Amino acid sequence: MEPSPSGGSRPAEPGPCLRGPGGVCQATSAYSPSEVGAQPGYRVAAVLPAGGCGERMGVPTPKQFCPILERPLISYTLQALERVSWIKDIVVAVTRENMDKMEGIIQRYQHKRISLVESGVTRHRSIFNGLKALTENGSNTKPSKPEVVIIHDAVRPFVEEDVLLKVVTAAKEHGAAGAIRPLVSTVISPSADGCLDHSLERSRYKASEMPQAFLFDVIYDAYQQCSDYDLEFGTECLQLALKYCHTKAKLVEGSSDLWKVTYKQDLYAAESIIKGIISQQICIVMDTKEDKGHIGLLEEMLKNELKHINVTSRTLCHAGRDLQQIILDQCYNFVCVNVLNFDFQETQKLLKLLEDSHLSIFNPVVVVSVHFLDYNSEPFGEKMENIMQIREFSKEVKKRNILLCGLLIYYPQDKLKIQESLRQGATIIAALIKERNPGLAGQLLVA
Amino acid sequence: MEPSPSGGSRPAEPGPCLRGPGGVCQATSAYSPSEVGAQPGYRVAAVLPAGGCGERMGVPTPKQFCPILERPLISYTLQALERVSWIKDIVVAVTRENMDKMEGIIQRYQHKRISLVESGVTRHRSIFNGLKALTENGSNTKPSKPEVVIIHDAVRPFVEEDVLLKVVTAAKEHGAAGAIRPLVSTVISPSADGCLDHSLERSRYKASEMPQAFLFDVIYDAYQQCSDYDLEFGTECLQLALKYCHTKAKLVEGSSDLWKVTYKQDLYAAESIIKGIISQQICIVMDTKEDKGHIGLLEEMLKNELKHINVTSRTLCHAGRDLQQIILDQCYNFVCVNVLNFDFQETQKLLKLLEDSHLSIFNPVVVVSVHFLDYNSEPFGEKMENIMQIREFSKEVKKRNILLCGLLIYYPQDKLKIQESLRQGATIIAALIKERNPGLAGQLLVA
Repeated sequence: MEPSPSGGSRPAEPGPCLRGPGGVCQATSAYSPSEVGAQPGYRVAAVLPAGGCGERMGVPTPKQFCPILERPLISYTLQALERVSWIKDIVVAVTRENMDKMEGIIQRYQHKRISLVESGVTRHRSIFNGLKALTENGSNTKPSKPEVVIIHDAVRPFVEEDVLLKVVTAAKEHGAAGAIRPLVSTVISPSADGCLDHSLERSRYKASEMPQAFLFDVIYDAYQQCSDYDLEFGTECLQLALKYCHTKAKLVEGSSDLWKVTYKQDLYAAESIIKGIISQQICIVMDTKEDKGHIGLLEEMLKNELKHINVTSRTLCHAGRDLQQIILDQCYNFVCVNVLNFDFQETQKLLKLLEDSHLSIFNPVVVVSVHFLDYNSEPFGEKMENIMQIREFSKEVKKRNILLCGLLIYYPQDKLKIQESLRQGATIIAALIKERNPGLAGQLLVA
Repeated sequence: MEPSPSGGSRPAEPGPCLRGPGGVCQATSAYSPSEVGAQPGYRVAAVLPAGGCGERMGVPTPKQFCPILERPLISYTLQALERVSWIKDIVVAVTRENMDKMEGIIQRYQHKRISLVESGVTRHRSIFNGLKALTENGSNTKPSKPEVVIIHDAVRPFVEEDVLLKVVTAAKEHGAAGAIRPLVSTVISPSADGCLDHSLERSRYKASEMPQAFLFDVIYDAYQQCSDYDLEFGTECLQLALKYCHTKAKLVEGSSDLWKVTYKQDLYAAESIIKGIISQQICIVMDTKEDKGHIGLLEEMLKNELKHINVTSRTLCHAGRDLQQIILDQCYNFVCVNVLNFDFQETQKLLKLLEDSHLSIFNPVVVVSVHFLDYNSEPFGEKMENIMQIREFSKEVKKRNILLCGLLIYYPQDKLKIQESLRQGATIIAALIKERNPGLAGQLLVA
């Protein structure tokens, strides 16, 4: 299954873990444990080695800190883990020089249940440090020893709850478990002179991916016993469990969205996937309950333009709880239709709600303020001046990661022409939501 | 090295192989053989197995035919190969049912030196069919037997001339050669019960990638001898050469842009890379030689906004050869600045040149028609009506894959405000070029 923004297997949504009215951290409904069907009846923690320097990416920033829509990659991964309510502690191993940066990320993106430890010089040493932190006596601020521990990569942001549950359940039964994928390329063994020694039969081997899970005692025991050579040059935790504890890991088929962000092209892919995920819902907000005529048509055309997108509409009249719930449900796209007035009163109300929700801390929110105008029959200058205020509003809210655009829809008497205008309007809205380009914020588009 | 749109190791540019004035197919200067430094002194051909059904992509279209900016992936790969002048023949193996589609692609994108053969049911059988086609006596329409044959994948569009030359040169010397990459994941061997049997030490193995190259007689001999089992279940050509001809392939380190488009996320990555490549050059076209003031400033701001981008400016006054050369050099981005008039005369001249060049057959061309306006001090309605004509022009040229946008730059008396307007204008232009979204074509943006 693919991480497709438009249906199919959905990757864990890197949206915020929003605080509900009671201040409780709510899992998104799509990935709540109840839907997955089960929760482990034992304590589970996770360790994330994040001490790598990203040399393969060819950029100075370690890949786990590379920004995607301005937010560091690791924040999406933490999100995916902390949304799973039965993962009680998450230990992240980072280098000493990145400790402050990591603390800043945790604070800014409101991550919960995270502890930091210093990473080692190799991946295995970092994981070992993370495990050690879990052996200490738990307190309010420190994690406590789990029965099962998940090991995951900071650079695999699209991990789903179901695969986490699968590896955890299999680890509880077998002592160790890990996700695997078919090999994409044939694997070969070079000889010392840089020639082919032999190639492996592709169907008999698998790529070992993450997440993996272990009975804590098994993997901790393995790390305590293992040699310096293992700690320096090893790459496979499952192998340590086998070698030192004779625990044969159960292998679990993972989906292709477990892939590891390794090269620059993977960052592009991750950005496209995240853009797709946060574009799955649009809310049309109206300043009136009465005039549903062209709004209904616009809604229909948006649905047509953006397949598999959930389009809902709400009025702002009651500044409703309705709308707050939609924001809580992490809708990142709003079309504010101004039928009655030619100003930004309604749009401003919506912007206020959005600002209060802090939704845009996590991902950029797109707001399109729609205004209808028959510029052939109406005096234009004054209204234009009104509308051009959008630039000022936009500047303000852009600081809070809200991308506000104006959309002037030509609205003549001729019904056919109206349809064409609305269709064009829908196309423009779709483009703005898809691209989410800050460079277009504050711009007034004309359909 | 990464396939970075902004410098570093540059992937083969999937631009058109443009016809020069003499009707000769010109390699792009950046990848001309002379720059790479050498040409093989023997006949080289290439075989591309393209019979796969793309099951891993999870979409009905086989991945080699998946559109990227509306153009099928395989066309970019063919482009990358045919731009290398010393590859004399390219044989593509496709299924019978895709034969027509493939012929359509060759015609539409003006691919040269291509022959089609029917693919077999497996990859090895397809390659064998391709090799057989090269044993026939060459004629004007049929390829002739090469000394060295390259085998490449249809779904690796970013292959560079230098790696092709490296594998060909190594194959001439060693009989066989192939590109390799470090393993991204550890490779493991599962036991029959779905548990870990053992894991391979990652540093001792490599991923075998494409391109590969062979002395034709070696690989053809190997295919003739090899068993049905090999043809059905084998995946590695280098292994066949070793097993049947005792030829130990030379392994050549490839760059990360050799990666194989396998999953949906790879399509997203490929699209981003291609967008980056065709956004590397912008040409500002002016309707006057005199007024360089704010145009110079706009140019400067564009350079500032788009790092590593080559911005040049030309006047249309002489409808010059200059501009034709820029189009020939595959500039996909034009900013047409209208200082003197408030209509589309100049923009239309440019559009005509672009249409005549057929450049937009290969990739969408972005044209931004810039108009300056002080809408506080000038009568507005009439000019607005003029400018709104852009929608009609845009509809026409959009059919030819030219994405035309209007950009109204607020141009008041106040110098500071002008600067701010121009800066915003540059940001908008940068966004339009980066996103290349057809949904915004025909729109009038206001800075």
